[in-house]
Amino acid sequence: MIIIGEKINGSIPSAGKAIAARDEAWIRNLAKIQSEANADYIDCCASVNVDELETMEWLIGLIQDECDTPICIDSPDPQVCVDAMKFCKKTGIINSVSLEGNKTDIVFPAIKDTKWGCVALLCDDHGIPKTADKRIEIFEEILRRAKDSGIAPDRLYIDPLVETLGTNTKSLLTFAEVCRRIKEIEPDVHITSGLSNISFGLPVRKMINQSFMVLAMNAGMDSAIVDPTNRDMMGTIYATAALLDEDFYCMEYIGAHREGLFGPVKQ
Amino acid sequence: MIIIGEKINGSIPSAGKAIAARDEAWIRNLAKIQSEANADYIDCCASVNVDELETMEWLIGLIQDECDTPICIDSPDPQVCVDAMKFCKKTGIINSVSLEGNKTDIVFPAIKDTKWGCVALLCDDHGIPKTADKRIEIFEEILRRAKDSGIAPDRLYIDPLVETLGTNTKSLLTFAEVCRRIKEIEPDVHITSGLSNISFGLPVRKMINQSFMVLAMNAGMDSAIVDPTNRDMMGTIYATAALLDEDFYCMEYIGAHREGLFGPVKQ
Repeated sequence: MIIIGEKINGSIPSAGKAIAARDEAWIRNLAKIQSEANADYIDCCASVNVDELETMEWLIGLIQDECDTPICIDSPDPQVCVDAMKFCKKTGIINSVSLEGNKTDIVFPAIKDTKWGCVALLCDDHGIPKTADKRIEIFEEILRRAKDSGIAPDRLYIDPLVETLGTNTKSLLTFAEVCRRIKEIEPDVHITSGLSNISFGLPVRKMINQSFMVLAMNAGMDSAIVDPTNRDMMGTIYATAALLDEDFYCMEYIGAHREGLFGPVKQ
Repeated sequence: MIIIGEKINGSIPSAGKAIAARDEAWIRNLAKIQSEANADYIDCCASVNVDELETMEWLIGLIQDECDTPICIDSPDPQVCVDAMKFCKKTGIINSVSLEGNKTDIVFPAIKDTKWGCVALLCDDHGIPKTADKRIEIFEEILRRAKDSGIAPDRLYIDPLVETLGTNTKSLLTFAEVCRRIKEIEPDVHITSGLSNISFGLPVRKMINQSFMVLAMNAGMDSAIVDPTNRDMMGTIYATAALLDEDFYCMEYIGAHREGLFGPVKQ
């Protein structure tokens, strides 16, 4: 599993407050704990209305000061994503494009001659499609545009977009169907997702989120935008990989436990 | 999900000690807490070498004194299972038959004119088959014998038998394949399993057990022999049912949480 650490995101109230106050120590700590929890990438989302690029530069500088985990540049503005690449010392991921507006026109040419990855959401100017068929149509168009730009499928992180279970009881079933069909069409693309939408409005969200993770991995999801310091979630991910025979004799599961990444905290 | 509460089992050290000491209060409490946790059946396994039937009578009496949850009579000796039926006030389940020895010859005639259910393990005199194909062969023979005795498929609780993940990395994959094929052959049978084997020898067993439960339910398992007072496991079961669209607008999930069956304990 490719873990994208989600904690440095201005839309999370505590992180938003730290960004507004330019609280260096807070941001540095979020970078440090996610890196120590073995995140593969650290998502960086300023979520500000003004000076977004400057804020990104400040955030990325702090993260790179603290650890050498590569950055996932996260902005709804594709130009900010592209312009922030120059602040990054390592090859990272842009988060995100979709078929909305001119996103792929701005991002794909900018990364074509690099090794950068790109998260692609399966939505367009009409929003999030209800059906699996329509999402697969969007996937195929994004894949076509990526290939036209010379971007190999394994640089794409497709986010099928998960709806809230409380208002759409087929949310997981649709998500899983889209995952399976994507992997049939193009096994090399990665599939990723955040987890907060699925459990919105329901009690004890961690039960829904963890069970969703297991079912999504079973359907082919091989990346997630999560809190890598969430020990039960990380344990669930390692356990599921072992159960799905993706972990030779549970060596990674046992190793991650030895490293202290999940299980009861040792005093 | 049909929950068979596993706690009154002499092979669990604390319960074995209570049975040896004829500790009524201990057994009554195990019955009470499992009934309050909404178990559909309470498993009753004496696990003693002498006086098994008398011990069963004593245990079943205590359980029925304490609650009206039906009993799952659990013994490796089919004659003890059959003889203990007369102690039970309600229709229950016999746990278990297999193709080992003369088990079905003793149990099936005894339950044919009742509404009792029966757990059937997919093993025979040669032990637990390695392959899914062989387990399906055993399933088909058990199903044939049950039908010959006039026992409807929905009275069978098939246990595909799960091996230890630490020594067989395809354990879950084989289990899930057997579940899917069983439901294709005969959708009306129930599928059940215990959880302790899958995680044997691995650290933080709850992570493996919970993720196994999610994947097994996804493959068609609709019953489990578990500790119904294990709040995280029960939360996982309710969450998975909701994700698999088996819970109309998460009503059961929300209701079980309101009843206090999972989530943080309220003080």
